[in-house]
Amino acid sequence: MVTIAVDAMGGDNAPKAEVEGAVEAARTLDIRVILVGRQEDLRRELQQYDDYRGLPIEVVNATQQITMEDSAARAVRAKRDSSLRVASRLVRDGIAQGFVSAGNTGAAMATAKMVQGVIPGVDRPALAGIFPTLIGKPVVVIDVGANVDCSPRMLAQFAVMGEIYSRVVLHQPRPKVGLLSIGEEEHKGNETTRGATPLLKSLPLDFVGNVEGRDIYTGKSDVIVCDGFIGNVALKVSEGLVDMVKQMLQESLSATITRQMGALLARAAFTDFKKRVDYSEYGGAPLLGVRGICIICHGRSNANAIKNAIRVGAEFSSGKVNERIEDELRQWAAEHVAF
Amino acid sequence: MVTIAVDAMGGDNAPKAEVEGAVEAARTLDIRVILVGRQEDLRRELQQYDDYRGLPIEVVNATQQITMEDSAARAVRAKRDSSLRVASRLVRDGIAQGFVSAGNTGAAMATAKMVQGVIPGVDRPALAGIFPTLIGKPVVVIDVGANVDCSPRMLAQFAVMGEIYSRVVLHQPRPKVGLLSIGEEEHKGNETTRGATPLLKSLPLDFVGNVEGRDIYTGKSDVIVCDGFIGNVALKVSEGLVDMVKQMLQESLSATITRQMGALLARAAFTDFKKRVDYSEYGGAPLLGVRGICIICHGRSNANAIKNAIRVGAEFSSGKVNERIEDELRQWAAEHVAF
Repeated sequence: MVTIAVDAMGGDNAPKAEVEGAVEAARTLDIRVILVGRQEDLRRELQQYDDYRGLPIEVVNATQQITMEDSAARAVRAKRDSSLRVASRLVRDGIAQGFVSAGNTGAAMATAKMVQGVIPGVDRPALAGIFPTLIGKPVVVIDVGANVDCSPRMLAQFAVMGEIYSRVVLHQPRPKVGLLSIGEEEHKGNETTRGATPLLKSLPLDFVGNVEGRDIYTGKSDVIVCDGFIGNVALKVSEGLVDMVKQMLQESLSATITRQMGALLARAAFTDFKKRVDYSEYGGAPLLGVRGICIICHGRSNANAIKNAIRVGAEFSSGKVNERIEDELRQWAAEHVAF
Repeated sequence: MVTIAVDAMGGDNAPKAEVEGAVEAARTLDIRVILVGRQEDLRRELQQYDDYRGLPIEVVNATQQITMEDSAARAVRAKRDSSLRVASRLVRDGIAQGFVSAGNTGAAMATAKMVQGVIPGVDRPALAGIFPTLIGKPVVVIDVGANVDCSPRMLAQFAVMGEIYSRVVLHQPRPKVGLLSIGEEEHKGNETTRGATPLLKSLPLDFVGNVEGRDIYTGKSDVIVCDGFIGNVALKVSEGLVDMVKQMLQESLSATITRQMGALLARAAFTDFKKRVDYSEYGGAPLLGVRGICIICHGRSNANAIKNAIRVGAEFSSGKVNERIEDELRQWAAEHVAF
């Protein structure tokens, strides 16, 4: 049975969402969960679930907590007994196969890299964002914020890692890999994309060339590779736009009685729509390239998002994503001197 | 009276949308419009408007046409009698103060730079995208695709140009200028943003520091400065996401009879919402930093978008945006050696 540690003190709704998500996962998914955080708080929270004593859930105490305001560097240096750090240590020591955190993203990435270490052959671990698309299947955008000023070689490694993730965890049989740029023609891009193109072509994967920003949502490719600065902007622009659209629609729909009635009748449509763009179904963003597993959830994660992140962590482990990344990178490094 | 030339053969709905937009502008805005394109096509289109002979509209013939598929380089070299090139020449020769095109963006930018030339003190002209925000006022994102691999110095110049545009054409009394990055703290960013920060601080404008992707839509700042690769991704991600949201909502709202009724009652709300996010109200993206005026519209532009672009071109001219850019850059270059 796979064991996943949960940093239970991280998210905006911690520890409530974390505990509920863990209980749901342990109840329905055949996964052992270790909740890490202030023991008394977690036990109190767990007592709300009548069946929790029979579930494969454990609690591991951690006295400190990293806030959203802590810098990653400070979090790593100063808070050695934080719930995040303790969760990452459980992975390093083989007690858990991976950890899930909805806390400070920078701190989680820095901790995973430092405590768990990096897979041989990987220059830099990268955060893989999972985006919804018009045609239903999710697309992996890698990197969404772990690295800036990426080299072409780093982008090629992101492609390898993202492609394996799409294949193994998202079940795309032969993922198409695109390079995020500002035009479809090969020469349209910047120095980095132009340098990455020949490397991506040399990889044994289905590289479809440049894709544009709008292609993220069309599902035209399954994996989209980019520098972490660009990917982070794409992610946050999307979040900001969705928030704006929601609020504007809400304002427009409540402006008159007729509209309110319309909105009431159409309520199922909005619920349906929200479900289709709901990030919580995709279970967070994996940090690919670290030893062990690190799944980073949105700060606003609800119990469903946490549960799905735990599920994703377990699939990641049983699909041996990290072993495949190490193997494939070793093989290609041997075949392609440039890479 | 300001004169604006319109490349009437460029957009997806050309020349219909261009002619209708020109007629509307000439009728209501006290602007002289020169339609550039195949004379016979334009005259035929104009004849649909009973009053057109009394309006300040002229037609200038151009035998060639640049398509969306033409490369910018080829368009500039090979099609010397294109509607775009002829429109740009009218600006160079002082017959028009600016031109508007809904055609090939790359070709329009290359043509304006080559034919009209660049304002003294500007290293690179930049495309200013105008985005809607939650609080109603538009935000300028500069650059959205004219330049990649921008230097910090280029970003500082974009800030100067965007700030003047926001002040003069968008009537923001004291625009706040933000630097697009991946975190609000000054050290969060890439080499370029970290290099740009001290330059932006040295400018006599209201620099608010780093802003994130989601802040584009909150209206937290009035001008957002970024590399053209990043800005282009932000623009196209937004377009792709809006298309997805529209289509998903449409599908959800038509799935059952009840939902259809709801949608019918709430129709005014959707119209209202569409108007609030409608790019056509903002009249296209100005290419800032070229001599004369160049306003680039979306390929899908309708007559309203063309009319508004013509209006914006005229306000740009009467507000002496270019003269101010030249003056302010000269002044700051004298004061700040680093700049």
